[in-house]
Amino acid sequence: MKRAKIVGAGGYGGVGIVELLLQHPEVEVTCLVAKDAVGIPISNVYPHLAGYCDLMIHASDAPEAQEEFDVVFFATPDRVGMHLAGGEIDKDARVIDYSGDFRFSTAKDYADYAGRIGLETEHLAAELLPQSVYGLPELGLVEIGPQALVGNPGCFAVSCLLGLAPAAKHGLTEAGSLICDCKTGVSGAGKNPNPAFHFPARHDQMNAYRLTGHQHVCEIEQNLSKLSGQEQRVTFTAQVVPASRGILSCCYGSLTPGQSRQTVMDAYQAFYADHSFVRIFDHMADIGTAQVRGSNHCNLIVDVDERTNRLRVLAHIDNLMKGQAGSALQNMNLLFGFPENTGLDRPGQYP
Amino acid sequence: MKRAKIVGAGGYGGVGIVELLLQHPEVEVTCLVAKDAVGIPISNVYPHLAGYCDLMIHASDAPEAQEEFDVVFFATPDRVGMHLAGGEIDKDARVIDYSGDFRFSTAKDYADYAGRIGLETEHLAAELLPQSVYGLPELGLVEIGPQALVGNPGCFAVSCLLGLAPAAKHGLTEAGSLICDCKTGVSGAGKNPNPAFHFPARHDQMNAYRLTGHQHVCEIEQNLSKLSGQEQRVTFTAQVVPASRGILSCCYGSLTPGQSRQTVMDAYQAFYADHSFVRIFDHMADIGTAQVRGSNHCNLIVDVDERTNRLRVLAHIDNLMKGQAGSALQNMNLLFGFPENTGLDRPGQYP
Amino acid sequence: MKRAKIVGAGGYGGVGIVELLLQHPEVEVTCLVAKDAVGIPISNVYPHLAGYCDLMIHASDAPEAQEEFDVVFFATPDRVGMHLAGGEIDKDARVIDYSGDFRFSTAKDYADYAGRIGLETEHLAAELLPQSVYGLPELGLVEIGPQALVGNPGCFAVSCLLGLAPAAKHGLTEAGSLICDCKTGVSGAGKNPNPAFHFPARHDQMNAYRLTGHQHVCEIEQNLSKLSGQEQRVTFTAQVVPASRGILSCCYGSLTPGQSRQTVMDAYQAFYADHSFVRIFDHMADIGTAQVRGSNHCNLIVDVDERTNRLRVLAHIDNLMKGQAGSALQNMNLLFGFPENTGLDRPGQYP
Amino acid sequence: MKRAKIVGAGGYGGVGIVELLLQHPEVEVTCLVAKDAVGIPISNVYPHLAGYCDLMIHASDAPEAQEEFDVVFFATPDRVGMHLAGGEIDKDARVIDYSGDFRFSTAKDYADYAGRIGLETEHLAAELLPQSVYGLPELGLVEIGPQALVGNPGCFAVSCLLGLAPAAKHGLTEAGSLICDCKTGVSGAGKNPNPAFHFPARHDQMNAYRLTGHQHVCEIEQNLSKLSGQEQRVTFTAQVVPASRGILSCCYGSLTPGQSRQTVMDAYQAFYADHSFVRIFDHMADIGTAQVRGSNHCNLIVDVDERTNRLRVLAHIDNLMKGQAGSALQNMNLLFGFPENTGLDRPGQYP
Repeated sequence: MKRAKIVGAGGYGGVGIVELLLQHPEVEVTCLVAKDAVGIPISNVYPHLAGYCDLMIHASDAPEAQEEFDVVFFATPDRVGMHLAGGEIDKDARVIDYSGDFRFSTAKDYADYAGRIGLETEHLAAELLPQSVYGLPELGLVEIGPQALVGNPGCFAVSCLLGLAPAAKHGLTEAGSLICDCKTGVSGAGKNPNPAFHFPARHDQMNAYRLTGHQHVCEIEQNLSKLSGQEQRVTFTAQVVPASRGILSCCYGSLTPGQSRQTVMDAYQAFYADHSFVRIFDHMADIGTAQVRGSNHCNLIVDVDERTNRLRVLAHIDNLMKGQAGSALQNMNLLFGFPENTGLDRPGQYP
Repeated sequence: MKRAKIVGAGGYGGVGIVELLLQHPEVEVTCLVAKDAVGIPISNVYPHLAGYCDLMIHASDAPEAQEEFDVVFFATPDRVGMHLAGGEIDKDARVIDYSGDFRFSTAKDYADYAGRIGLETEHLAAELLPQSVYGLPELGLVEIGPQALVGNPGCFAVSCLLGLAPAAKHGLTEAGSLICDCKTGVSGAGKNPNPAFHFPARHDQMNAYRLTGHQHVCEIEQNLSKLSGQEQRVTFTAQVVPASRGILSCCYGSLTPGQSRQTVMDAYQAFYADHSFVRIFDHMADIGTAQVRGSNHCNLIVDVDERTNRLRVLAHIDNLMKGQAGSALQNMNLLFGFPENTGLDRPGQYP
Repeated sequence: MKRAKIVGAGGYGGVGIVELLLQHPEVEVTCLVAKDAVGIPISNVYPHLAGYCDLMIHASDAPEAQEEFDVVFFATPDRVGMHLAGGEIDKDARVIDYSGDFRFSTAKDYADYAGRIGLETEHLAAELLPQSVYGLPELGLVEIGPQALVGNPGCFAVSCLLGLAPAAKHGLTEAGSLICDCKTGVSGAGKNPNPAFHFPARHDQMNAYRLTGHQHVCEIEQNLSKLSGQEQRVTFTAQVVPASRGILSCCYGSLTPGQSRQTVMDAYQAFYADHSFVRIFDHMADIGTAQVRGSNHCNLIVDVDERTNRLRVLAHIDNLMKGQAGSALQNMNLLFGFPENTGLDRPGQYP
Repeated sequence: MKRAKIVGAGGYGGVGIVELLLQHPEVEVTCLVAKDAVGIPISNVYPHLAGYCDLMIHASDAPEAQEEFDVVFFATPDRVGMHLAGGEIDKDARVIDYSGDFRFSTAKDYADYAGRIGLETEHLAAELLPQSVYGLPELGLVEIGPQALVGNPGCFAVSCLLGLAPAAKHGLTEAGSLICDCKTGVSGAGKNPNPAFHFPARHDQMNAYRLTGHQHVCEIEQNLSKLSGQEQRVTFTAQVVPASRGILSCCYGSLTPGQSRQTVMDAYQAFYADHSFVRIFDHMADIGTAQVRGSNHCNLIVDVDERTNRLRVLAHIDNLMKGQAGSALQNMNLLFGFPENTGLDRPGQYP
């Protein structure tokens, strides 16, 4: 069994990868690190784990956390992984980081991202960027495998990129015409209480937020630009609805000449032919986010509004699975050469 | 006191106008008509009304329903009001119809609407159309007052029209660039149970529906076209989220040359200066649908995405108030010459 | 118009009484006091109030807060009102306090309450206790009117006391047999975020809490004991469910000899005959907390489990109305000699 | 691989066992039978299954449904399984029935059950009752293994029986003092839409139902009586709250002389020492139904209200897992001699 360490084990991203690894035949959780709840078992923090994972939570400088691990997950905020990833790689671990730290391949791209969202712009481990890879294998931009380091994608970015990648790659839509109107459940905001996510305030509430700029836009634009070979700018709107899990992103773009419902559908089906986690539906499908809850799938409805000659793609994911821990496990599988869907080959529970 | 009859009293639209009239100083509910629950008091169907409105529900052909009333509300599906409105008008009643029957000013426009959504296209009371008026007074297209007959607007249409009317009127956006991405709570679907709105199926579920065409698009396009003086086509996406009340519509359009965040905001503030039910906020506002729940307000966030030179307006309404019964009462006030906000001058309850 | 000051205006209890006073014909909100958000309008904190109440929030020592008011509401935690009530009464104000400070008529009873829940046991305004009155007029223990000072009841206590008062008064149930199994929506916990009420943690979650003792038990037991003339002890279980508003309390007790479904129902109907906010239903009624949401009613289902000879009463209230601000307004009406239901004569909105 | 047939595959109980069997190493789903959606793949009805289970749904008389299977699940209403179980047993299948048909060991006990809830009282396969077994192995009343036929328990009954079995077995509580106050999520009502479970009607709604008698009471009383050796009658209250999954049952009983918090806790821990699906917590535990969602566990909080000398046990289950399909799989494992937790050894997903 390969040995995994999880840094940031106390958050939703941490407990998510714990749950998944409990069902993985080749990898086991051997060390949990977090800032809070140090010295108590994770099953006291998350009692559903009682009897399944009762490991103690350690501080990051505890001796137990200094051992060698085969894989380290940084389920941590921006600018944590960049401090620690190098040390883990030096000890021969594969590293998967959930934040924006390793989603960009150059220090300049990172600085653009960091600046937009008010972070310090200097990357503290820029020497690692060339060996890092953006962890959304379905894009086909790079093969995940030999690398040591994966920047796990942002949850909104996963939905928008899977929704628009074939259009960008094959020039189905006009540059400058792209809009992503995104709705997320509240778990995307993480575990910490907040006035906006207090139950009575969120119940029966829908609202947009961060209209001035969301941190996931950068990686959407950069990857669409790489796919299309020209700069792609996107109008992006993040909205929260009173659900726990799920992202529904509606992606719009003006069709280029010669495109039709059929050419568009063909392009999408071909693009994802080898990617079983992406399922494609037409505009008559009766599906929503509940049909991906708990699974690593992205369900796409590929549609054309013929009256306005516009592409409309609805992307559905579980923000904590394909949008976070599920992608992390998929990326881990690829790093180790396991079948991509090991430990992820499940449909979720309904209702 | 003026006397009101409500046809379709058993549905959410019917009980909504009952609740509002209970607090209106000049008009009282005197007759309730519905297809179901005939012969039993409405407070048996809606026990929260016990002690406030215990009127019996009558069949439409009951003697009590043939009396003369000052105002008749048809809280009924398409093609009911057109059969009955004429008879009420002949008895000198004002009529407010919730369906699409009187939202269009010509038989041809009605036929276009009806055809798109699979209804019979012949209007059975076409002679009444010239005296009917579209019941969204904030548009400024017509003054509501002397008429006998109001076509109460569709809930999605209210949000999109209020969100885009100033842009259409003043040419802020390019024709052909408009997109309305709309999310509604479930009460918009009415009172009848349905597999898609069964609690376990709807809980933690978001989905788009009627991608092939929603019945409210016609009235959005026709009114925007009237306001702008040129044909306006809109890509419209209806989505349902696990809320009970509320519509959040995000309206997009490419800015015409010379527009800026400031010119746009100025235009919106001027357009709605005399309309107290529309409240305008900028992109820093922390508001959502919960801030209009139970009230007749439409809260607009007026924003410009400067990176892509695009207008973005977020319109928030309570679909059962400004989207339905609230507008109906507002229209009734105008028909009778009462102050527009009589019986509606309340902020709602929070949380 | 009488002038009201609200201390603790920033919480749910504060905004609740603001909303209600906006519709009261005889009393107006003239001063808002809170610890947070001082110096900004309450409509920035609660944007639904924009245009209805835009008063600035003041610190408690601001000059504006030192004026004379006709009524002062302390929507504040335990041990705040006891410091300040006396000063207001000296300026001739009526005072309504939401906390436990004035729910008990002697310093000894207060000490018992305070001790059970870990507060300091000394009452700092014990001289006011003789003139304070417990604010649940339907109990019939005292007439609210001439007093200056009301201890507004706890939300759970309202439901349990209204559910069991006739049984206690008329000896329908055995002492020692009473159990109150109570479920509340989350708004009862107030406005401050908390891990247990974070939306993803609360969604699809039910749990009991404070099994070691809830602060409302004391006032339930004391008032039931007064009504029955013997000591009443109650097993009380507080539970939270994923709703925003509403309390459903199921109250059980073993019937004394000679009682039947009919004698019990008769006793309840007689007890509440003059109290329009209590509505009585039998065991066939199809009602729940949604049928009192937004109104000041308490709906009781009065039932007997004949197989086990046990009384079962289901009490439904809106915890923020009859459980808090609604009762406060009702008490204010009684203090001023207004009809009890002034400003409260509404059924709520459904759905 | 053993072959399973599922009758009633279209409901929540059917899809639940499909999901579980997809992850079972020894048994595979080979035939699906339902009344609706005949001739279409189950993944059209439940799109989350696409790619995992795309089997066609058959009518019960289809040739494919007449083959021999190793196990047949009847996820069907009362009085379906009794018609068909015999035929399957004759073909050497094990049978697990979700309804009340085989929960009782004599025709007389069945008649009592059926009569109470308005069913025909004659059992149509009374000859099978002696070989049937009640499928709640933790009760220790019978060893599940050699039998051919299991009556899968009712969801409320699972929670109440696990909550009270040690008390009944060891005489911890007085006969006649037992009360079960139960709250369920809506999925317990199944898949069919219903006015009471329409989203807007259920959202923010709590209510009791079937106060005149719930079908699960019989099996609770019969099994508690067997455990205790004397007749046990229970006051039972079923309530629905706005959750999708989960049952929280609060069980009360007066302690017999000599019992204390410690003796009670010891008895519970001993009773369930060999049963890993029951986890025992004390009254300080911070757990709710979310901590068993998606898993086959029953979490018990074992408490004593010392002020009233009363046992209080809070039982938490996922009504669709330990309350239905999870128990069915557990029972199947026991029938086949597999380890009890095969295919069930997971903690669920949080949040």
